[in-house]
Amino acid sequence: MESIKIFELSKEYLESLRDAIESQDNNFIKESLDGANEADVALLLDELNMEEALYVLRLLDSEVAADILIELDEDSLLKVVREMEASELALYIDQMDSDDGVDILNLFSVREREDIISYLQEKEKSAHILDLLRYDEDSAGGLMAKEFIKANQNWNVIQTIEEIRRQAEKVEKIYSIYVVDNKQHLLGRVSLKKIILASSDTKIADIYDPELISVPTHMDEEEVAEIMRKYDLESIPVVNAKNKLVGRITVDDILDVIREQSDEDIQAMTGISSDVEESDSIFKISKARLPWLLIGVIGGLLGSQIIDIFEEGLQKYVTLAAFIPLVAATGGNVGIQSSSLVVQTLASKSVFDDTPWQRFIKGFLIALLNGLVLGFFVFLVVVFIMGNEKIFGLTIGFSMFCVVLMASFMGTVTPLILDKFGINPAIASGPFITTANDLFGLAIYFGIAMWLLNL
Amino acid sequence: MESIKIFELSKEYLESLRDAIESQDNNFIKESLDGANEADVALLLDELNMEEALYVLRLLDSEVAADILIELDEDSLLKVVREMEASELALYIDQMDSDDGVDILNLFSVREREDIISYLQEKEKSAHILDLLRYDEDSAGGLMAKEFIKANQNWNVIQTIEEIRRQAEKVEKIYSIYVVDNKQHLLGRVSLKKIILASSDTKIADIYDPELISVPTHMDEEEVAEIMRKYDLESIPVVNAKNKLVGRITVDDILDVIREQSDEDIQAMTGISSDVEESDSIFKISKARLPWLLIGVIGGLLGSQIIDIFEEGLQKYVTLAAFIPLVAATGGNVGIQSSSLVVQTLASKSVFDDTPWQRFIKGFLIALLNGLVLGFFVFLVVVFIMGNEKIFGLTIGFSMFCVVLMASFMGTVTPLILDKFGINPAIASGPFITTANDLFGLAIYFGIAMWLLNL
Repeated sequence: MESIKIFELSKEYLESLRDAIESQDNNFIKESLDGANEADVALLLDELNMEEALYVLRLLDSEVAADILIELDEDSLLKVVREMEASELALYIDQMDSDDGVDILNLFSVREREDIISYLQEKEKSAHILDLLRYDEDSAGGLMAKEFIKANQNWNVIQTIEEIRRQAEKVEKIYSIYVVDNKQHLLGRVSLKKIILASSDTKIADIYDPELISVPTHMDEEEVAEIMRKYDLESIPVVNAKNKLVGRITVDDILDVIREQSDEDIQAMTGISSDVEESDSIFKISKARLPWLLIGVIGGLLGSQIIDIFEEGLQKYVTLAAFIPLVAATGGNVGIQSSSLVVQTLASKSVFDDTPWQRFIKGFLIALLNGLVLGFFVFLVVVFIMGNEKIFGLTIGFSMFCVVLMASFMGTVTPLILDKFGINPAIASGPFITTANDLFGLAIYFGIAMWLLNL
Repeated sequence: MESIKIFELSKEYLESLRDAIESQDNNFIKESLDGANEADVALLLDELNMEEALYVLRLLDSEVAADILIELDEDSLLKVVREMEASELALYIDQMDSDDGVDILNLFSVREREDIISYLQEKEKSAHILDLLRYDEDSAGGLMAKEFIKANQNWNVIQTIEEIRRQAEKVEKIYSIYVVDNKQHLLGRVSLKKIILASSDTKIADIYDPELISVPTHMDEEEVAEIMRKYDLESIPVVNAKNKLVGRITVDDILDVIREQSDEDIQAMTGISSDVEESDSIFKISKARLPWLLIGVIGGLLGSQIIDIFEEGLQKYVTLAAFIPLVAATGGNVGIQSSSLVVQTLASKSVFDDTPWQRFIKGFLIALLNGLVLGFFVFLVVVFIMGNEKIFGLTIGFSMFCVVLMASFMGTVTPLILDKFGINPAIASGPFITTANDLFGLAIYFGIAMWLLNL
């Protein structure tokens, strides 16, 4: 424990590492990185350029390099593996768990994949990988690994320990041993704790726990994540349509799924169209942000056309213009709030959720309440503090009320519709709903004004 | 495996459960819930009222009831435990892991806690709980449990297995065995796999792994979550200032922390002030949403005062009003995008992050690029499609450019400042930044218009 990291992750170390690469000081690189955690080394390599990162990887033991590759961020990984020969990459993939190998192969075309797989030394690994490649990347099948321990129900504890010994190299973390019958049907699980505490001739059939939650290969990864979170599982077996055990998903993969999902939602909500990070290039970030901004701008230009229609009225009553931002802002805020609550519930679907109809009524009642409060508040301020005519105050207050109702309806309905069509409903909390609400809000506001003020 | 759940979670079952409670059909309740997963039963009880939930809990075995209590959502839990006598609640807490017991005790005042603890039967448990209550709820100390297996480095494998046997009842999931010296200093870990594969007289000192990541009791829970995610850990030991092992955090608690954090961020970004769910009452949701809406409304009213200042100019050039929504929307969208990227990076702080100064320059360059594109686009549309004068197109286009720069600056700086003061920076992506950008944007727009159009 004296020193869990030989190097400390710092900008200074990064600089000395860069210097060592330039001067080909291989001893410094190897010694300073010896014993460092792979995730930390990966963070370092993320900061280096492709040639530098490749130089470091090739100096290290191939098993360590394989572990580091898995931990690289997607951009760095892509740059590095694209530069490798198929044979070199196969060397690393031979050292990885099958699910991690598949994640890397998925970066390549079908033809390139076949080329890389043909160089794999371990026949069992390449069979596993070929099997895993069949599944959708975002499904339980795409997330699972083939490395896990299973025991036949007819084995005794000694036989099971023998199997653990045989697989010990390949399966780093065991968690549970899955119990199957002769046809590989999943029967249940037995914990390592039970194996340790049982006498050696105990039959697995007598100690295994048949209460076990498994998921089918085709289940969406976000649903798997929700099940593992809900039932506090650190690993979950994956079965095919015939309930045969085909893989295992571990909680570390799920942590990444949850993190990605949350990042994705936030990006959808804030109108950043593709997966970017603050560390990406200016052009990449700019490009990721422009599309939604343009939609907002086009919405704003359409808004100017709507106002144009009412220009004559506006000429007569120019103070109307002063309250355009109020109407627009309220519509936007209410819409985002409403959709965000719906999106949150959709993320963890439950059989006890309200039906769309119940949601709609509830949302309507909340909007009614908030609309009345805000409308009345605005009426009071506009008339008694700003000193406008009562009929003008009524125009603004009533518009507020109607805009709150409209925006709340849009905010509730849009994510439900998007979800129905399999689109990430979080988009509905973003610039899309804001832009739409702006336009509807303007039409409502000027419509009411023309009517109440006789313009 | 034939039937992992006796009941299926459904609205129909919920109804029959309600009927059974009303008619006191205890056999049906007990039989239908026998073997059901605690998390599923908790979901059912969340749907019942307090009397019904309490009725079901009291019918069940106290160990099962304790597991269900832990899984209830916060509102249901609070309702149910507030109704129990201190002695009844102590009976359940006696069956829980210390960290779960502390979570429940934290719902009560100091005096009530002491009362409940005095009823605890297990002396070791009450000592553990008293110790844990000292820590901040949101710290590693507040998250850790006292139930884990530790082995002295001088023990052999047989002694360690004896310890596992002794603690088997109390420690449900073992993961790793932590290795300590005679003074309880944390030295490293040894996996159950290694224990199984080692011969019985092997000394722990010879097989333990000294490379171990631990966290101090005072570390913030979100930082702990990030470490466990980054290093793919399923449990992490917690040490005090003297590096003595004092507890263990397991990944299931971390999944909840991550989920809560993401919900919190999204609520902050969408302007919902307190923790509400769609299933909460109309008044509770309405109350949670009003404060930010009111801030938006007050911002809108202030905006009307800004426009009022320019009323004379607006009278002369009423078309200016038509582009108010464009300016406001762009300011809002740019601000949210900028802040969201900064917030995302702040969530996983790294030593390689840009300095505030670098961030600022980068943000400025991105804004420059996007501002030029959008400003030029708007100029073209306003002049060549809408057929306005060139000077008017220039006014709108140049305003757009300035608003993009301003909003981007605000969006970058606000979350950094909030973070400095320990406030959740996600708030900066919400109604606050939008409202501020609206006001600044209006001032910029009308200022430029007055100047360029000589109004």
